[in-house]
Amino acid sequence: MEKTSKKVEISLRAKEMPASPIRKTEPYATAAMKKGLTVYGLNVGQPDIETPPAFFEAVRNFPGKVVAYQRSQGDLEYLEALAGYYRRCGYDVSEEDIVVTTGGSEAIIFAAQATTSVGDEIIVFEPFYTNYNGYAVMCGVKLVPVTTRAEDGYHLPPKKEIASKITPRTRAILVCSPNNPTGTVLRREEMEMLAEIALEKNLFIISDEVYREFVYEGEHTGILELPGLEDRAILMDSISKRYSMCGARIGCVVSRNRELISACIRYGQARLCSPTLEQHGAIALTRLPGTYFDGVRAEYRKRRDLTIDALQRMDGVMCRKPKGAFYVMARLPIDDTDEFAKWLLTDFHVDNETVRVSPGAGFYATPGKGKDEIRLAYVLENKRLERALYLLERGIKEYNRTQVD
Amino acid sequence: MEKTSKKVEISLRAKEMPASPIRKTEPYATAAMKKGLTVYGLNVGQPDIETPPAFFEAVRNFPGKVVAYQRSQGDLEYLEALAGYYRRCGYDVSEEDIVVTTGGSEAIIFAAQATTSVGDEIIVFEPFYTNYNGYAVMCGVKLVPVTTRAEDGYHLPPKKEIASKITPRTRAILVCSPNNPTGTVLRREEMEMLAEIALEKNLFIISDEVYREFVYEGEHTGILELPGLEDRAILMDSISKRYSMCGARIGCVVSRNRELISACIRYGQARLCSPTLEQHGAIALTRLPGTYFDGVRAEYRKRRDLTIDALQRMDGVMCRKPKGAFYVMARLPIDDTDEFAKWLLTDFHVDNETVRVSPGAGFYATPGKGKDEIRLAYVLENKRLERALYLLERGIKEYNRTQVD
Repeated sequence: MEKTSKKVEISLRAKEMPASPIRKTEPYATAAMKKGLTVYGLNVGQPDIETPPAFFEAVRNFPGKVVAYQRSQGDLEYLEALAGYYRRCGYDVSEEDIVVTTGGSEAIIFAAQATTSVGDEIIVFEPFYTNYNGYAVMCGVKLVPVTTRAEDGYHLPPKKEIASKITPRTRAILVCSPNNPTGTVLRREEMEMLAEIALEKNLFIISDEVYREFVYEGEHTGILELPGLEDRAILMDSISKRYSMCGARIGCVVSRNRELISACIRYGQARLCSPTLEQHGAIALTRLPGTYFDGVRAEYRKRRDLTIDALQRMDGVMCRKPKGAFYVMARLPIDDTDEFAKWLLTDFHVDNETVRVSPGAGFYATPGKGKDEIRLAYVLENKRLERALYLLERGIKEYNRTQVD
Repeated sequence: MEKTSKKVEISLRAKEMPASPIRKTEPYATAAMKKGLTVYGLNVGQPDIETPPAFFEAVRNFPGKVVAYQRSQGDLEYLEALAGYYRRCGYDVSEEDIVVTTGGSEAIIFAAQATTSVGDEIIVFEPFYTNYNGYAVMCGVKLVPVTTRAEDGYHLPPKKEIASKITPRTRAILVCSPNNPTGTVLRREEMEMLAEIALEKNLFIISDEVYREFVYEGEHTGILELPGLEDRAILMDSISKRYSMCGARIGCVVSRNRELISACIRYGQARLCSPTLEQHGAIALTRLPGTYFDGVRAEYRKRRDLTIDALQRMDGVMCRKPKGAFYVMARLPIDDTDEFAKWLLTDFHVDNETVRVSPGAGFYATPGKGKDEIRLAYVLENKRLERALYLLERGIKEYNRTQVD
């Protein structure tokens, strides 16, 4: 067999595919742990809250002897249970408006594919959930950022500023409230303003509401509550955070636009189904009493208060007190948080312990923004959270000392 | 809020997204079952073989209290176990050459994204696994078909015929052996011919080998066995069929091209992880003795013989005896099997029982081909399989009678 002299090259879009800023420090974290270090993970929204035992019980009692394909649209019983959950949220939807997805991740991909063609644009508010970048590259879509600012509590800018970013290629507005990474909960008027723009400019609104239950002040406004958006409102959702089930990979797309749902079902057919056991287990979760969230919410509120107090006491650190989700963007007295996040894992420890954070630049689409910011996820119980924040404070001081030397 | 008069349109690529021919009859099947009919499913490769109890046991004994995110590349212990499995297959790979995917479906998407840009071409041999069409639309890739023919046992055509389809935009050859939907097992010389073409034309080879263990005559040749392909051979795999775990959604991409694996890990980071519980359970499956497959293989061989005998006895039906996987393409004395597959569910039954099949056209990329063919999956135990084939025979006769009337 004659060998060609040419090397086969991976695709340009593969080269362009960004590493997740939340996960790209993984090799350093793994190396740190191999050296025997304890690493407190504030980088990723992985709660330590226990998954409700009802899930494990349902999975243990899975009735079949074969882990068979589930329907592409989703387990019928789960779809019905989900429709019930959304009706309790006040949304007028039935199981025919829902497609179960493999995590919220797939819900975004289905929504992006169904609303855009290659080269089309989606309006996003930066800082935004960094993985939107990855989906955009995979779907050949351009994310057009509208910047929100810490000074405004990361609330939306005026309508005309948003409208000015809309071009003939704009197909959708992607909004996330309660927000990852800022924790901001959009006011009803803000959601209504986006609805107005969508109607005036004939756009879809894709609303990422996976943190719906995690609001500590104010109130969540769901896109499906607003009138007049039947054909253009797309809810994307996930049970990952709601029930501390990140590894289950169960999300969904909800829309009353049947043509869009039909397209999502065809995307669903191409990947056959979402995990069977987890859908079965998730049925049990939809039956948990509403009080379940009271306990979880109280716990996260405590963690938020502890985190913000600690951050605000640190020299040169600036952050706002978020009203929802379990993240906060903090500005550090550091030029390049990419370097800092890596350094925390490779060159720093206190008594063999260190902390892992997500550098901020990956949460922005505008080049240069976010380089002095980090995102923290307050997902650890109080003692460990305190320790992690102490390590961060020590880390900032020591890093800045090494930079001067 | 002023309502625009315009209707918001889903994207062109969403409109182009094909329904799976394997699954598009679902509404009719559901309606038939609601009417009280028993529907024998020969349409989908969903084995009734029991999932090994070791999987359920491992899941029941999942050590954590939180179903947390797994690593994006995959559970370390599972990656090591998988590398062991492949080394037992005779492939020289380590865990660093593997990325766990959410089903074989995601493995195809990652491989297609990593090797092509929008508008690029991949050579496929038709009839091919119909869902390749869906991935192609999602990835903006053109599938260029090379037709294989029943008369040749669906073996590959001569090298020059394949080479003649290669253009400057061709980036990869996608091959599947043992084949879905034909059951053909490619000979070593055929795989070597593809390797030669890939080297001469500087292409990737993406090899779908999810039926590796299901070979009844002849021998499987894995792409990773062939020398000289280190940078261009991509194995895509799944445990769905191997262990009767279709609903678990666990597959993988394997390649010794580290740049490609790095891209797949970045795709993996965008969707966070594959299901945690199932990866944990799958570790146990890699420890099953090799004899496990002897029993399963003997069972499928019996089903194959029964299926082919029955088909070859039917008037006007033509098929080849496949050597692997658990599918067969059969030509029926019917012009439009799309209509026929629907009719079986809407207008036909014998004693309240009917059968579901996959129409053939969706397994071809060349327009017009496959319209008189169906794909059958012999995945039911003998008694039910016999009954299903009897229903098919009766159905063909009755359908042709109604067409004449």
